[in-house]
Amino acid sequence: MQSQAVLPRNAYYLARFEAEKERFLEEWKTLLRIPSISNNPVYDVDCRRCADWLKTHLEQMGLMAEVVPTVGKPVVFAERAGDPGLPVLLYYGHYDVQPAEPLEEWLSPPFEPTLRDERVYARGALDNKGQTAFFLKAVETVIKAGALGCRLKVVLEGEEESGSAGLAACLVERAWKERLKSDVLLVCDSEGHTIEIPGVTMGLRGIIHLALTLKGPAFDLHSGIHGGAAPNPALGMARLLATLHDADGSIAVKGFCDSLTRPSDEIKRLLMAAPFDEECYIRDFGVSPAGGERRYPVQERLAFRPTIEINGIHSGYDGPGHKTIIPSSARAKITSRIAVGQDPQRSLQSIIDHLRANVPAGLTLEISDEDGSHGALAVDPASPFVKRAARVLQSIYGRDPLYLWCGASIPVVVSLIQAASAEPLLVGFGLPRDRMHGPNESFSMTQFRNGFLFSCLLLEELSKPSA
Amino acid sequence: MQSQAVLPRNAYYLARFEAEKERFLEEWKTLLRIPSISNNPVYDVDCRRCADWLKTHLEQMGLMAEVVPTVGKPVVFAERAGDPGLPVLLYYGHYDVQPAEPLEEWLSPPFEPTLRDERVYARGALDNKGQTAFFLKAVETVIKAGALGCRLKVVLEGEEESGSAGLAACLVERAWKERLKSDVLLVCDSEGHTIEIPGVTMGLRGIIHLALTLKGPAFDLHSGIHGGAAPNPALGMARLLATLHDADGSIAVKGFCDSLTRPSDEIKRLLMAAPFDEECYIRDFGVSPAGGERRYPVQERLAFRPTIEINGIHSGYDGPGHKTIIPSSARAKITSRIAVGQDPQRSLQSIIDHLRANVPAGLTLEISDEDGSHGALAVDPASPFVKRAARVLQSIYGRDPLYLWCGASIPVVVSLIQAASAEPLLVGFGLPRDRMHGPNESFSMTQFRNGFLFSCLLLEELSKPSA
Repeated sequence: MQSQAVLPRNAYYLARFEAEKERFLEEWKTLLRIPSISNNPVYDVDCRRCADWLKTHLEQMGLMAEVVPTVGKPVVFAERAGDPGLPVLLYYGHYDVQPAEPLEEWLSPPFEPTLRDERVYARGALDNKGQTAFFLKAVETVIKAGALGCRLKVVLEGEEESGSAGLAACLVERAWKERLKSDVLLVCDSEGHTIEIPGVTMGLRGIIHLALTLKGPAFDLHSGIHGGAAPNPALGMARLLATLHDADGSIAVKGFCDSLTRPSDEIKRLLMAAPFDEECYIRDFGVSPAGGERRYPVQERLAFRPTIEINGIHSGYDGPGHKTIIPSSARAKITSRIAVGQDPQRSLQSIIDHLRANVPAGLTLEISDEDGSHGALAVDPASPFVKRAARVLQSIYGRDPLYLWCGASIPVVVSLIQAASAEPLLVGFGLPRDRMHGPNESFSMTQFRNGFLFSCLLLEELSKPSA
Repeated sequence: MQSQAVLPRNAYYLARFEAEKERFLEEWKTLLRIPSISNNPVYDVDCRRCADWLKTHLEQMGLMAEVVPTVGKPVVFAERAGDPGLPVLLYYGHYDVQPAEPLEEWLSPPFEPTLRDERVYARGALDNKGQTAFFLKAVETVIKAGALGCRLKVVLEGEEESGSAGLAACLVERAWKERLKSDVLLVCDSEGHTIEIPGVTMGLRGIIHLALTLKGPAFDLHSGIHGGAAPNPALGMARLLATLHDADGSIAVKGFCDSLTRPSDEIKRLLMAAPFDEECYIRDFGVSPAGGERRYPVQERLAFRPTIEINGIHSGYDGPGHKTIIPSSARAKITSRIAVGQDPQRSLQSIIDHLRANVPAGLTLEISDEDGSHGALAVDPASPFVKRAARVLQSIYGRDPLYLWCGASIPVVVSLIQAASAEPLLVGFGLPRDRMHGPNESFSMTQFRNGFLFSCLLLEELSKPSA
């Protein structure tokens, strides 16, 4: 048997994974059993429990850890000393998850993690408990191997899925900036390209959101007696939302796209190097890529173009048969992804102004839960950390990673980069079929293993004096 | 004390009402306690129970009664012999009610009738159990007074709120046509003008309905990862529904209004004689009459213009906070009121054709629960029965009734008129503030009394040899 020092590092960590994977799985499942849904106060106690569990776990791994109260959900912060001559790595993750609705579509309960065909099904299996779990297990393994030389900081927040208010409030504090100061911020909260082809994420879109209520009659009215007199909020909401886009999918909100910048030719080349497989998309998601601004290629639409999406619309009757009413109100939830160049506050304001200017006659619009604090992120392809991550990925997959632009948002990452004065490094192992945010979210043992190997090897890479 | 024969008939029946009103109220409440909701199979047993209760009640009143099975809910049929020289009166009512949702808006439970300020609150308090109850109590009272001479038939169906399939299937049968044959069809399922001013209903709109499902992705998708590629059914439904009307509220469906006829100048004069009080409307319903086709006066919009109303629209997330999804599907329920001249089947088909032609790219439209079998009704102002009803109303209210056109539909009434070869007589005592179809539906003891008096006096009027 080869000794640890002689065994190639990939093979060594692969062997460690194989030896430990049952325990890794059990710990990951323990984390998944906690319904740490952040957008609903009902689950506050579970969020707190999740933070406490992580603190204890990080301490058992050999880090100094604490649960720090914030104006929102607590933040878990942990660190481990390292060689001052080496880069400081800050890992960011989140322990909160999306709501699990629609519950009836889950094949196994969302908070009873279930292994089927070497794949763990649970809310958060991927986002972000799966990717955080492989990183923590990598840290533990590299420490045990005596190979962790660089200083490590870990910040795990509990509100990524609902606006990151707690952590964001910390990030403006000088003490927090000092505490988080680091050279590179590693975030594993995005997707790779395929199971065979890794990816480094080079950009994220920003996000703004708002909720609408369109009020009409004081109560539901008889649609025969009142039809032709009373304005209908369900119809009015449809008409109002329909004004947001032109017929070709372009956003019709005045001023919204004003400061949007087009990607450079070099970036476009990298973007288009990751092909978009339409047939595969249709097979995986049951729908053709017919959404968005159709005059742009789909890769550009997903990365460098903004969107205004309706996440929910609800009004009136939805039971069996029909009910002849003019509903008294209609509700809608909107999130908009903004691209590089757009200012979140100004973009939000332009949507609000547009909506207010287009309220159908007789109805009253109320806007709530509006937030425009999270801009887009652009990673520099020339960053040395990106290059080192690419080398590590090459050694695991046997091929260079693709550079990916993710249409999603990790709201707090832009602020975190500024607060920590760090260079961003975004490497994710999720895949479309994992159904992040949807029912039956899952993450395979293979993806977990790849993420684990990447984390181990990156930690070693950053621990080399020459690096 | 005056004898019955000497007492003016109004005063006599008023005295009977005062003497009996506690019992009338208890019987009416018993009827209201049965949740005979016809659009949901869960309540089938309650509908059956309601029919049985009515049969027994009609028998106790001295009529021959039976519960007749149909392809849908059972029909209660009752009759009482009369003088062959007198007109045959057929009374039509329905024992089914609308669903009670939204339940949380009721101040007292919808199926626990509650008297507050001389007003009974319950689902069906007015529509149609209240108006049926005063008619039945009137029949009982006139029989007890020995004053019912004309032959009486009563048909009470259990599916008025959900398409009248059972009774409609009966009406094509020769035996049923024979059974229902009558001179005048009395329907008390509409509204009067105000508490002081009675009305005779001269028209009803027809109704067509359909339900839409717009399907997109196979499951809810992450709105960041997929926003710009996946078509959004919530947005698509909004855009699709927004195509149904032009900016001024006119219906934009090709062919829909083709055969619509404008009311004659005489009818328009009668229509406009009932003023529309906009201030009062805003006070009662919390909304200005800004709906419908704004180039027509509101009275005309409510009576002689068609509508396409969205009764419900549902898609995606509706919980606290926000959820970043592209929902997999969207649902909508549509009812359309059609006016005199429009063919229900052709009108329905034109809406279906329009919707199919406007499905947003990438989405799939499924249409279900479509029905276009109920046209509009126009009553002749010269009908002798209308004139006799007007005289009776004058004697109760001390003023002539207004001629009213009701924008609502009583789907089966047109078929019933044909099947029974009867002249229609539509006199209702409901008022806007009774919130028919909405939460906290109610009907006041005063309205019940006026309906009772009208029914008693009309029955006597029709029992006069000279009449």
